[in-house]
Amino acid sequence: MTAHFNRVVVAGVGLIGGSFAAALKQAGAARHVVGMGRSTGSLQQAQSLGLIDEIATDWSVALKGADLVLLAMPVGQMGAAMQAMAPHLEPQTLVTDGGSTKGDVIEAIYTHLSGHLACVVPAHPIAGAEKSGPSAATPDLYRGRKVVLTPLPENAPHAIDTVRAAWAVCGAVMHQMSPQEHDRVFAAVSHLPHLLAFGLVHDLAGRANAEQLFRYAASGFRDFTRIAGSHPEMWRDICVANRQPLLAELDAYLAELAWLRALLLNADGDGLEKLFAEASAARNAWGAAQ
Amino acid sequence: MTAHFNRVVVAGVGLIGGSFAAALKQAGAARHVVGMGRSTGSLQQAQSLGLIDEIATDWSVALKGADLVLLAMPVGQMGAAMQAMAPHLEPQTLVTDGGSTKGDVIEAIYTHLSGHLACVVPAHPIAGAEKSGPSAATPDLYRGRKVVLTPLPENAPHAIDTVRAAWAVCGAVMHQMSPQEHDRVFAAVSHLPHLLAFGLVHDLAGRANAEQLFRYAASGFRDFTRIAGSHPEMWRDICVANRQPLLAELDAYLAELAWLRALLLNADGDGLEKLFAEASAARNAWGAAQ
Repeated sequence: MTAHFNRVVVAGVGLIGGSFAAALKQAGAARHVVGMGRSTGSLQQAQSLGLIDEIATDWSVALKGADLVLLAMPVGQMGAAMQAMAPHLEPQTLVTDGGSTKGDVIEAIYTHLSGHLACVVPAHPIAGAEKSGPSAATPDLYRGRKVVLTPLPENAPHAIDTVRAAWAVCGAVMHQMSPQEHDRVFAAVSHLPHLLAFGLVHDLAGRANAEQLFRYAASGFRDFTRIAGSHPEMWRDICVANRQPLLAELDAYLAELAWLRALLLNADGDGLEKLFAEASAARNAWGAAQ
Repeated sequence: MTAHFNRVVVAGVGLIGGSFAAALKQAGAARHVVGMGRSTGSLQQAQSLGLIDEIATDWSVALKGADLVLLAMPVGQMGAAMQAMAPHLEPQTLVTDGGSTKGDVIEAIYTHLSGHLACVVPAHPIAGAEKSGPSAATPDLYRGRKVVLTPLPENAPHAIDTVRAAWAVCGAVMHQMSPQEHDRVFAAVSHLPHLLAFGLVHDLAGRANAEQLFRYAASGFRDFTRIAGSHPEMWRDICVANRQPLLAELDAYLAELAWLRALLLNADGDGLEKLFAEASAARNAWGAAQ
């Protein structure tokens, strides 16, 4: 299936939304892109960069005759956006999103878009977020990156196929999981590491000798804590939204640390070396395969 | 003070020892460098690379007329090396080391080199260890990097000055701390992050769905876990040697995680955002100053 859309609405024109718009336009898959957003400045910037063709401030205007909507705001704002768009959503319009968590987005879909469940196909693009805003958007952001679809049981097969084709035309490698599986996997490999890095930096930054500690921090610390420089509001939303799977992962990790603590307390060099060797082998095998 | 040595002995001719030898030679500060070590292969490689002038397999030969000795083996082997060298150490010979922990090295000094305390000046070069072996050695390794001296109360002022000058001639920026302070600082900013990264990878690698988890791990995970690919034996030695300060740091971190857990459990978005914002500001200020 190839994707072609006459009218695409991108709500949130930052890195995720702006790049989706740019990629569809570059591929010739979107004739006209409408940008919606909270910030007039971002919308004007997105228009002047050619990411979008039209600025809309009202869902009733934006959604008229739309083929596809991407919700690309922080996950904490998606419920309100869905509530606002619901009265104006036409039956043929497909909706997808770019949220990093899926359980909470899907809860909002059932709450606010219950009349449109056939057409709303949740998605999570695994694309870096070190930079943000329209100026960071690029048509190549999704090229070779994974996008995970987590379809609803109520989704029409044609809606799933078309949303999948839209992301694929941006260059993404398409994956599919249940929302529960998605949220557990990303709690483990993304949300927990962010929580742990924020926690370490917060712990050290509050010490009386914080300045001395940071003076002697070197390259290992730099890489380990890079994600602690991430956007606080975005990560607040993700952690709150995905708190159940994240708590389960945190508890599993606390059990691991309890074991490490016992090995240290007993000066169990053999036990530590075995654990480090298993971790090192797994990490280096993964790194070599990337 | 400028440093000049007729005869330097480097015990362990890998990244740390080989680079020290190469830097002293390049600066014209060492006339003749003798290499000692466990591995004949490494010693021959170091000689063919021009890092050392002579291979010694016997401390009685190596130490004859030596001005300066660098102990650059893993910290777990330093006690045995000191015991073996003690009978042959001449009164004028200065000794320093490149160990990442200082409390245990100093304990070994008091045990095995008690007759030479004026001349043995412990040091810790903060230089990356992603590569290892003689082929990774370079005269520029220490240029602009910190080297922390942790002198003993018994050290002669002249010994401290000369050892400091030797590291400085390699291009290092010299710092000084008490051994206790050193071990606490590096437990916090280096040893704990390594332990946490090893623990996370070990936890995930042991899961039934480990393959799936690693498949969706992205750039944040890559940086966070880079140090989990470190050398298991080296980190076993460091963790065992520095286990008391490391346990104290681990317990402080566990208290931080208990707080984070409570915030998650209560879905306390404001509390999480405040903590993340403090961490993010501290991390980005530190990163910008590097």
